[in-house]
Amino acid sequence: MATSTDKASTRDRLLDAAMELFYRDGVSLGVEALCRSAGVSKRSMYQLFEGKDEVLAESLERRAPEYRRRLGLDAETSAPPRERILSVFEQLERSSAEDGYRGCPFLSALVELKDPEHPASVVALRAKNGLLDAFRAEAERGGARDPELLARQLALVFDGASARAGAKADTLQGLTTSTVKVLLDAAGMEEHPAS
Amino acid sequence: MATSTDKASTRDRLLDAAMELFYRDGVSLGVEALCRSAGVSKRSMYQLFEGKDEVLAESLERRAPEYRRRLGLDAETSAPPRERILSVFEQLERSSAEDGYRGCPFLSALVELKDPEHPASVVALRAKNGLLDAFRAEAERGGARDPELLARQLALVFDGASARAGAKADTLQGLTTSTVKVLLDAAGMEEHPAS
Repeated sequence: MATSTDKASTRDRLLDAAMELFYRDGVSLGVEALCRSAGVSKRSMYQLFEGKDEVLAESLERRAPEYRRRLGLDAETSAPPRERILSVFEQLERSSAEDGYRGCPFLSALVELKDPEHPASVVALRAKNGLLDAFRAEAERGGARDPELLARQLALVFDGASARAGAKADTLQGLTTSTVKVLLDAAGMEEHPAS
Repeated sequence: MATSTDKASTRDRLLDAAMELFYRDGVSLGVEALCRSAGVSKRSMYQLFEGKDEVLAESLERRAPEYRRRLGLDAETSAPPRERILSVFEQLERSSAEDGYRGCPFLSALVELKDPEHPASVVALRAKNGLLDAFRAEAERGGARDPELLARQLALVFDGASARAGAKADTLQGLTTSTVKVLLDAAGMEEHPAS
């Protein structure tokens, strides 16, 4: 009989494989290929999850904290809001140059699923809204004229950049940060000389 | 025996169905469902096309001229470059509010295929580069400081906007045009009073 530790490791293996494969090959990947890659029987999968939709949703949920951490959204920092926003885009530029980069995993899932009510779309939208909220908080802290508008503009640039880099339509080097600086300046979040 | 007119109409039916279904449901849609919806036998399909990849590539190719036309990229106009660029984004805002809008069909195909060498990705990239070229031409005509940078920025906003609207992560009303105005101003393509 499977112990609870076995179950946990089966679950981990499945979710890790799902995170990697759905990102690399798309969400249309079948249960068969997923289980094979995870080294898990379909029977075991169906004991742990209702089906592929749930595996996909949970694999995205599992990815969210690491995504936030890499972008520096949760870091304790005394950096000024302008620097903090720019550092998100510097990280995006770095990530996009890595092998195997295929864009923002949450935006890709939304584009591929084409159904905002799919359980995985709900998770993906929550992650995207988390980024929007972080931008809005920094915009407010930095005294932007219209923090909501600036946050939406930054999300637009972030998603356009990640989609174009993932699709190999452009590289981002120097593109996103220069664009973001223009938007920050126009919103009244100009650079201040170090005091 | 099938006449050449029959063949043309079978071909048209298949490509029209492909254009609609791949956009609505994604490129992972199977040959079976495609042929059923087009009212064409699989045998007939394989007489006309090598396979699904070719149908997908040709259906995107077929969509490109209408896409350019809707965005006003080929229109004869004496409108100043700034107005011409803004009108592309006004059209994007209008399109994105329509029922069944799922983002730019070319960007979606690229995001879904995850393979820049897929024949349909090649077609999609060509369409996206056509938009970039149009932006660059207007930027040059309008005396932008760095036409290449401005064109890439506009493509970034266009793709971010279409992806976010398609994914229901945001509406575009007033968002894209206000963002584009900031970028045009910063590039030295300010609004001039009517002379």
